Amino acid sequence: MIIDCHGHYTTAPQDLTTFRDAQIAALKDPAQTPSRASLKISDDQIRDSLEKAQLKLQRERGTDVTIFSPRASTMAHHIGTEATSLEWSQICNDLIERVVGLYPKNFVGVCMLPQSPGVPPANSARELERCVKDLGFIGANLNPDPSGGHWTAPPLTDRSWYPIYEKLVELDVPAMVHVSSSCNANFHATGAHYINADTTAFMQFILGDLFKDFPTLRLIIPHGGGAVPYHWGRYRGLAQDMKRPPLADHVMKNVYFDTCVYHQPGIDLLLKVIPVENILFGSEMVGAVRGIDPTTGQYYDDTKRYIESSVLSGADQRRIFEENAYRVYPRLKARLASAQA
Amino acid sequence: MIIDCHGHYTTAPQDLTTFRDAQIAALKDPAQTPSRASLKISDDQIRDSLEKAQLKLQRERGTDVTIFSPRASTMAHHIGTEATSLEWSQICNDLIERVVGLYPKNFVGVCMLPQSPGVPPANSARELERCVKDLGFIGANLNPDPSGGHWTAPPLTDRSWYPIYEKLVELDVPAMVHVSSSCNANFHATGAHYINADTTAFMQFILGDLFKDFPTLRLIIPHGGGAVPYHWGRYRGLAQDMKRPPLADHVMKNVYFDTCVYHQPGIDLLLKVIPVENILFGSEMVGAVRGIDPTTGQYYDDTKRYIESSVLSGADQRRIFEENAYRVYPRLKARLASAQA
Repeated sequence: MIIDCHGHYTTAPQDLTTFRDAQIAALKDPAQTPSRASLKISDDQIRDSLEKAQLKLQRERGTDVTIFSPRASTMAHHIGTEATSLEWSQICNDLIERVVGLYPKNFVGVCMLPQSPGVPPANSARELERCVKDLGFIGANLNPDPSGGHWTAPPLTDRSWYPIYEKLVELDVPAMVHVSSSCNANFHATGAHYINADTTAFMQFILGDLFKDFPTLRLIIPHGGGAVPYHWGRYRGLAQDMKRPPLADHVMKNVYFDTCVYHQPGIDLLLKVIPVENILFGSEMVGAVRGIDPTTGQYYDDTKRYIESSVLSGADQRRIFEENAYRVYPRLKARLASAQA
Repeated sequence: MIIDCHGHYTTAPQDLTTFRDAQIAALKDPAQTPSRASLKISDDQIRDSLEKAQLKLQRERGTDVTIFSPRASTMAHHIGTEATSLEWSQICNDLIERVVGLYPKNFVGVCMLPQSPGVPPANSARELERCVKDLGFIGANLNPDPSGGHWTAPPLTDRSWYPIYEKLVELDVPAMVHVSSSCNANFHATGAHYINADTTAFMQFILGDLFKDFPTLRLIIPHGGGAVPYHWGRYRGLAQDMKRPPLADHVMKNVYFDTCVYHQPGIDLLLKVIPVENILFGSEMVGAVRGIDPTTGQYYDDTKRYIESSVLSGADQRRIFEENAYRVYPRLKARLASAQA
């Protein structure tokens, strides 16, 4: 079983984008607010959007199931109010539930949260609970910067975030720390903002004591952990200089990196410096990089190939492809079993 | 000859900090503004600050000369006004000139610029010119985020930055893209803000056409290029998807990475994916990480060891340790020759 922990519904039908555009346009003229009922997406449209993309690539690459969430870049929590984000989150999460309903062997759901700048993270707990309890989702994406590149929220170790962690722990689901698009011209979304957020979150965890307060909380830092594995000596050294505990005890019992690193030397580094038990297979397919690498003739984001071409033993590869995922997502196994039934 | 392209005067005498504290305190009460004449630092104080630190480490590690600039974290362009930054820059740059005067074989000067949030970068051109023409400096540090973690300036490819690039080109000196401390609680300075800025700048260069407009401009991205080498496939793939030219033509004729990566696997990755001609030896000694790595028994920031332990040939190591620096800093050779005379 090969479990891709990081996929977004980047290929959702155009009607979804049309609805969102109307929702955003209506922020200036509430009379134009589209009704939720106006958004009609058929099962065939959903099938069509996946068969040509994620499902085709799953088959071609030999991956079995994708832990699937709404498109990250269009979460755009910085747009509109809390009510805007709540409606948009519910719509996107419900659509993921439909995907999972149509292809229960291929997808398992993860939700986006109705975050909004300046709004207490506590307010997202209800939608998280709905998605896990009612929709059968197994995790959430948590945006450390709902302002979209202005970084106006407090660090993830601040107590204002704690209600979300309490709910994650209560429901026994992990969160992936994942920003959305950037409305700061300095930060290209997938080329800078995403990677910076990964790096930033990890450093916040070094400085804070989040996992002392939540020893069973599990957070996934995507995109191979941002810059962290490449600068692993810097992070070990900074922690040491600041008299923080060793990273193995202080952070790495609770933090996992995915394998969304799009070349062999990067994956080789990740596998060399980060313990196998902290790594989850991920590709972010279909995502940030969609082309074929001319130096290999393969898709950049076909990260399964890099892991298979690494020096890792078969047993260690299985941990990354499958076994670690069961540990990080305790609700995953039951979901897969019910899909097989 | 082993040339360390990245050293800051992090060990400057306490009197400098005392002056800066008074300067900052006086922002609220201008009557308390300290006079520049009140800052008296003796040659012996300077010698003492270096003999126990940078010079001792140069000798121990077998490096010859450090391209030396004011402490990056205390540039703090976000504090006070343009006048505050101008005075502080002149003081810090003049102090670097004194260091170079006392140890002309060990140090060559690079300046900080009197940047300030919202102030046109053009206003920094005069101090740059003074440092190069009057003080004999060979480069500058350019802060892409004078706001200190709020990222309120436009991207480095914006035309408002062009007057600085024009002056750099006219003087034939490079700039290192280097942020300062962060006043945004999300970003630890050396653990997040520095690395994020490196990554951010590189992505800006992919998106823009800066080097079409300035084909001879040379910019150094420190800290091993941030996250870029680890995600080299992502950057190649993003450029390809966006129909940008190949990175080799579009960015890598003008951009250089230093070797401030504090463990062997990180350096090995850097040397594997980035062409040798784009790499400059740097350690940022005495800088972000000052401890000894218990896994090696050596200083984390003794990056010379990692390069020497890599698979690179002696000829390629010489390019990184010495020859590339002459190309990137055309004024370096004359400075070293006059120091020997």
